[in-house]
Amino acid sequence: MLFSPIKHVAKIEVRYAETDAMGVVHHSVYPIWFEQARTEIMRIHEHPYHLLEAEGFSCPLIQMELEYKRSCHYGEFADVHVSLAKEDRLRTRFFYEIFVDGQLCVKGSTLHIFLKDGKPSRHSPEAFEKIFFPKAP
Amino acid sequence: MLFSPIKHVAKIEVRYAETDAMGVVHHSVYPIWFEQARTEIMRIHEHPYHLLEAEGFSCPLIQMELEYKRSCHYGEFADVHVSLAKEDRLRTRFFYEIFVDGQLCVKGSTLHIFLKDGKPSRHSPEAFEKIFFPKAP
Amino acid sequence: MLFSPIKHVAKIEVRYAETDAMGVVHHSVYPIWFEQARTEIMRIHEHPYHLLEAEGFSCPLIQMELEYKRSCHYGEFADVHVSLAKEDRLRTRFFYEIFVDGQLCVKGSTLHIFLKDGKPSRHSPEAFEKIFFPKAP
Amino acid sequence: MLFSPIKHVAKIEVRYAETDAMGVVHHSVYPIWFEQARTEIMRIHEHPYHLLEAEGFSCPLIQMELEYKRSCHYGEFADVHVSLAKEDRLRTRFFYEIFVDGQLCVKGSTLHIFLKDGKPSRHSPEAFEKIFFPKAP
Repeated sequence: MLFSPIKHVAKIEVRYAETDAMGVVHHSVYPIWFEQARTEIMRIHEHPYHLLEAEGFSCPLIQMELEYKRSCHYGEFADVHVSLAKEDRLRTRFFYEIFVDGQLCVKGSTLHIFLKDGKPSRHSPEAFEKIFFPKAP
Repeated sequence: MLFSPIKHVAKIEVRYAETDAMGVVHHSVYPIWFEQARTEIMRIHEHPYHLLEAEGFSCPLIQMELEYKRSCHYGEFADVHVSLAKEDRLRTRFFYEIFVDGQLCVKGSTLHIFLKDGKPSRHSPEAFEKIFFPKAP
Repeated sequence: MLFSPIKHVAKIEVRYAETDAMGVVHHSVYPIWFEQARTEIMRIHEHPYHLLEAEGFSCPLIQMELEYKRSCHYGEFADVHVSLAKEDRLRTRFFYEIFVDGQLCVKGSTLHIFLKDGKPSRHSPEAFEKIFFPKAP
Repeated sequence: MLFSPIKHVAKIEVRYAETDAMGVVHHSVYPIWFEQARTEIMRIHEHPYHLLEAEGFSCPLIQMELEYKRSCHYGEFADVHVSLAKEDRLRTRFFYEIFVDGQLCVKGSTLHIFLKDGKPSRHSPEAFEKIFFPKAP
């Protein structure tokens, strides 16, 4: 597995609508925060995901796993740490850790493939490679 | 306003994810139940919305209003009563009342226009007219 | 109607999960952005909503209306302008306008009452009054 | 791992709001369908989850994994197959397979512990045991 040197922390304010009757953030919300972290890491490196889409690429999620350690609550800000790696030539894995006040709440990863015009692509988009997996000089 | 003779009641089980930290269904969920009721009323009259889409039509929502009378809770089933009317030649209004155990919880309406290939359509889809606004003989 | 001098603009990045198969933000998402704007306007004025809850207050939404002018898309940032007014002694109305790149996309309002320990409260929370409806000297 | 003899299939109609700009059900929706399947399997066996809550129990999700094989679309009905097993004395695992027209779309599992009055419970609720893990005679 080849890790990217690029990392990012997305700061997300808990929305009331994201809580459930247990008074905590519902477990189905964290994948959406993961996605927000992926959106941010690509945007701040000048190749936002919607540009990839405009180039005919998409990057669907094919596997996901999460561990829930502590609950998040309305009134809190969450730090979503995101990093990524090449799982193999065709698949990219993103890793996430969500912290509130320095305490680990959720840990997870998502696995993605690149599609070009709807079909599995043999190569990641060039700009994506250049930013996240630059070759050593 | 020309009312359709067609009405429908969609029965919806509250999902845990739809509740919030107040222990009740979050107010943003009811528009989704309205949509489910629209899906059902079209499906059971043999012209499901996804067929309209396949014919190049869409029916975006352009205005919405809701009144909240009582809360819905996890463990309950809601009856979403839906009816519709022509607001004018171009616009269709759907009306909704949501009941739990015979008690009115939410009342609302949504206003829609038909688009054909993304542009406002002068006519509703023919099948839609025939089903919901049949002419008197 | 007594308007508060306090206004706020919440900047919200569109989430992929918030889009639908029409390629635009689903209409049920905007009430959640409205709520995020309410969260922010209270937080930045040093009386976050979760503190109100800790004092036994809640502020449920009892009515809502929205007009949809233009669609929002993934890859965009929305500016949610929020202001508020006393509708009458018991009810507070929030007003919203959502802009993307200076274009008005959505306009709406939500009506709220204050509950204290679950019962309608004759008075808004003191801190809320002091911040949002300060008396002229 | 001790498997329960009890299984269930929940039939779920795709909601428009559940789709995203790729035209498919967003990956964060399936955990909500899983939950709907858990709600149903408990309800039809006469011990709905909200009764467990009324008895002071809760059953939070502590781990989740999903594999995405095929997309689901608006206009489709999904069959969510659910079964469960004791992972060990304290933890219950639910298994899911989601089919559309006989094709496997999503596969996953969720791991849960029982809490009594907010603290890990040494025993599952009695009614839960009796229904899902009846002892051989």
